[in-house]
Amino acid sequence: MKNHSVFCVSDHTGVTVEAVAKSMLAQFPALEFSLIALPFIDSPEKAQEAAARIAATPGALAFSTLTDPALRVPFHAAGVSLFDVFERIAPAVETALGEAATPSGGRTHGMTPDYESRMDAVNFSLALDDGLQPQRLSQADLILVGVSRVGKTPSALYLALQHSLRVANYPLTPDDLEQNSLPDVLLANLTHLRALTLSAERLAAIRQARYPNSRYASLAQCRNELAAAERLFARHAVPVIDSTRMSVEEIAARLRHS
Amino acid sequence: MKNHSVFCVSDHTGVTVEAVAKSMLAQFPALEFSLIALPFIDSPEKAQEAAARIAATPGALAFSTLTDPALRVPFHAAGVSLFDVFERIAPAVETALGEAATPSGGRTHGMTPDYESRMDAVNFSLALDDGLQPQRLSQADLILVGVSRVGKTPSALYLALQHSLRVANYPLTPDDLEQNSLPDVLLANLTHLRALTLSAERLAAIRQARYPNSRYASLAQCRNELAAAERLFARHAVPVIDSTRMSVEEIAARLRHS
Repeated sequence: MKNHSVFCVSDHTGVTVEAVAKSMLAQFPALEFSLIALPFIDSPEKAQEAAARIAATPGALAFSTLTDPALRVPFHAAGVSLFDVFERIAPAVETALGEAATPSGGRTHGMTPDYESRMDAVNFSLALDDGLQPQRLSQADLILVGVSRVGKTPSALYLALQHSLRVANYPLTPDDLEQNSLPDVLLANLTHLRALTLSAERLAAIRQARYPNSRYASLAQCRNELAAAERLFARHAVPVIDSTRMSVEEIAARLRHS
Repeated sequence: MKNHSVFCVSDHTGVTVEAVAKSMLAQFPALEFSLIALPFIDSPEKAQEAAARIAATPGALAFSTLTDPALRVPFHAAGVSLFDVFERIAPAVETALGEAATPSGGRTHGMTPDYESRMDAVNFSLALDDGLQPQRLSQADLILVGVSRVGKTPSALYLALQHSLRVANYPLTPDDLEQNSLPDVLLANLTHLRALTLSAERLAAIRQARYPNSRYASLAQCRNELAAAERLFARHAVPVIDSTRMSVEEIAARLRHS
C-alpha cells in the first residue's frame, strides 16, 4: 500500500497542526501516512528550506498553521499545496469581526494559562497524588477518587498541565471500601469529588501487568472493589466517569464538563 | 469594549478546536473574547441544541471540528456561520488523495499513542522524577538535567502524557556543580541527556516564591549554579534549551526536535 508522507508545518510548536492532520487523516482509514513534524518555521529562510524539502518528496501532503501569510509564500512558490488552517479560516473570521487579522507567530498571548499557574497546578497535583496531604484537599479544584489503578494520576497531571487545575487524587483502599460511606476527608469536600471507574476486565489487565497472578490483580478482587466503590459514589451522588475506552484527553474533557 | 462570545464546538474533546480558536483570535489583539467549550457534540440532537444556543447569543462566533458533515447541518439551518476546520480543509485533502473522507467522530485511531504506553510513560517519569532510581536511567528515552527549579518535572510529564516518552529528570545539586564533569550515572547515558536552563532572574523569582529570602533563592546563588551547570553542559556537548520565555508545549517541542 502506498504510504503518504505528511508534513506538519508550524511557526510554533506544531501541537495544533499535528492534531488537525491526525483528525483529518483518520478520515481516510484505507490509506497509510507517515507524519513528519516541521515546527518553528518562523522565518522566510526556514519556510524556503521546508518548502524545498516537501516539494522534493513525491506524493507528500502538507498541513500547516502559519499565522503570517508571508511565510506561506515560499510554499506556494515551490508548488506545494498547503492545507493551512488559518489561510482557510481567516477570511471568514475577518468578515465576521469586521477587522483584519494581525499575524502573531502562533502565540496565544493572554489566553493560555501562564507558566506560573501551570507550574503551581503541577506541583499541587504531585504533592496531593495518591492520597498524600489530605489536610490540603480543600485547596483542590477537583479531587479524583477511585480504586487503585483506574487512571487517577495521569488524569490529574493532564488537567494540571493543560488547564492549570489543582487536581488531587485519592485512592479508595480495601479498608475504605468496607465502610458505609466515603472517608470524612472526602465528604468534607464533596462538591469537588469526581469518580473514575473502569470495567473489571480492564482493571484486572492493568493490575496484572504490574503484579502478575496476585490477588490484587485477580478479576474477582477487581469486581468486588469496583462494585463497592460504585455503591459509595452512588450513595453520595459523586459524578462517575467510566474511562474504559477513553483517552486521557477524553477523560479530562469529561471531568471538566461534569 | 465589546466582548465576543466564541463557541468551540467539537464532536470529541475539543482540544483541537480550542487550540485553533485561540491561535486565530490571538491575531485580533484589540478585541476581547470569552471562550465557551461545547465538546462531545456527537449526535444531531446535541448539534441542534448547540446551534440554538449559539444562534441566541448576539455577536457570537463559532469554531468547530465536526468530522461528520451531517452534524454541521443544524448549525447552517440555524443561521450560525461555523468556522469548521474540516469543512474548509477536507475538499482540498480529498482532491490531493483522490478519495472521499469518511467521518470518524474525531477519533484518530491508530495514530495516537495508546493508553497503556502513555500510562507506562507517566509512571516511568514519576518513578524517575528528581533523580530517583538512577539505576534505571538507561531505560529512559530522554533525561532532563538542570539545576533545581528550571522546569524539569513539568516538561518530563508533558512529554510522557503527550508523546508517550519515558522521560527521567535529574537535578544537578551544588555538590554536582563543584565537580569537573557530570555525574557518572549521567555520562553513562550521555546521548539521552537534554539540559534545561533559565535566566538567573527568572530562576531567582521562581525560587523566591517557594523559599523567600533564602540563600537558595538569591540572584547570586542562581547565577553561580546556572554558570557552573552551563560549563558542564558545554564540556559534554549536551544540547541546552533556555526555557526563559517558553511555554511547556514549546519546551517539549524543542526537546523532541533537539
